[in-house]
Amino acid sequence: MPQSLKTPRTTLKRLHERGDHGRDGVYGVLDAGLFCHVGYVHEGQPFVTPTAYWRMGDELIIHGSSASRMVRVLAAGADACVTVTHVDGLVLARSAFHHSVNYRSVMLLGQARLVQDKDEKIALLEGLIERVAPGRWATLRPHTDQEIKATGVLAFAIDEASAKMRNGPPVDDEPDYALLIWAGVVPLAQRVGTPAACPRLNPEMAVPDHVTGLTIG
Amino acid sequence: MPQSLKTPRTTLKRLHERGDHGRDGVYGVLDAGLFCHVGYVHEGQPFVTPTAYWRMGDELIIHGSSASRMVRVLAAGADACVTVTHVDGLVLARSAFHHSVNYRSVMLLGQARLVQDKDEKIALLEGLIERVAPGRWATLRPHTDQEIKATGVLAFAIDEASAKMRNGPPVDDEPDYALLIWAGVVPLAQRVGTPAACPRLNPEMAVPDHVTGLTIG
Repeated sequence: MPQSLKTPRTTLKRLHERGDHGRDGVYGVLDAGLFCHVGYVHEGQPFVTPTAYWRMGDELIIHGSSASRMVRVLAAGADACVTVTHVDGLVLARSAFHHSVNYRSVMLLGQARLVQDKDEKIALLEGLIERVAPGRWATLRPHTDQEIKATGVLAFAIDEASAKMRNGPPVDDEPDYALLIWAGVVPLAQRVGTPAACPRLNPEMAVPDHVTGLTIG
Repeated sequence: MPQSLKTPRTTLKRLHERGDHGRDGVYGVLDAGLFCHVGYVHEGQPFVTPTAYWRMGDELIIHGSSASRMVRVLAAGADACVTVTHVDGLVLARSAFHHSVNYRSVMLLGQARLVQDKDEKIALLEGLIERVAPGRWATLRPHTDQEIKATGVLAFAIDEASAKMRNGPPVDDEPDYALLIWAGVVPLAQRVGTPAACPRLNPEMAVPDHVTGLTIG
């Protein structure tokens, strides 16, 4: 398994000092999130679909209804781009031009493999539930064959990818630092709120640890 | 200006009860966010680039370095898809199959117009700064011609789009509601943190209201 995910198509052309083509850097960004945007072409038109993802070893997994456009197009072998983005802050500089964003992102290129084997499919879906809330899978009503059939699971080998990130304060033109203009970073982060029980929850049911302890990344 | 943004390509095929093709619904989702994912094709390969966006009237605006791949490809008239996604919560159901996500998203199709007129370009860039922090533009070091030249500004007419959203508690199979399984929603939201001043800030500079009052959407 090569450590570098760099290819001519994923080589960062601009601001390459912000880039990382190593497997560790890419996995670090992937493992910090849960939602991606998948790009593919259907009848000549690019589409970008938001969806959940999770990493299992050296593959990035997504799923969806077997009937959905995204699953059908990707299962047919379409070229795809999966992009994961975490926005960490707004960088307010002393000139409009140097305003920026602190972020971590990954762009992964490739074609998906439609997972056909039923046991592998179930194991991957278990991986999603356990990624979100470790320990939850075993508590659920068991899945049915029909549910597994209705779910399309797609796996992307993580072979061709790049990570890109920026952090830190604004970088201004040297003479501008002395100006009486506020500059700095306004942090942004995803916040996990207080769980809201289903109105029809069985009243004997307490909130389990896998819900109170839920975090992203 | 037609109120409906529905075309054959943006007609929602699945779960259309979650959809909205009206201008108000689409603008509501757009105006709640600041970051989008732009899909386009370059040399046969789809790419999905994360970037800031803002709405000016009936156009969605993005910008980037004039030298960037995204700006060059879109300026040449490539078909594009701009997707905006807000994740509002994880929906934990009693079966793996009915797990879901509460979200609001917009998918906008079209080709970008490269803004060439210098005054329009400046007005649009002012729109971004003012979208993020109303009142900030007037406080900044004035822009230079070179900075305006180095920035590519692209405008998408909002003519062909759909919004899609889900909210509320899990929807489970009727017999499952009685089971002793915790179900509900774990809310997710973007949190704005405490501004961190640039280490080189002029010490006479206080934090202005447009920074302390900054919100997204």
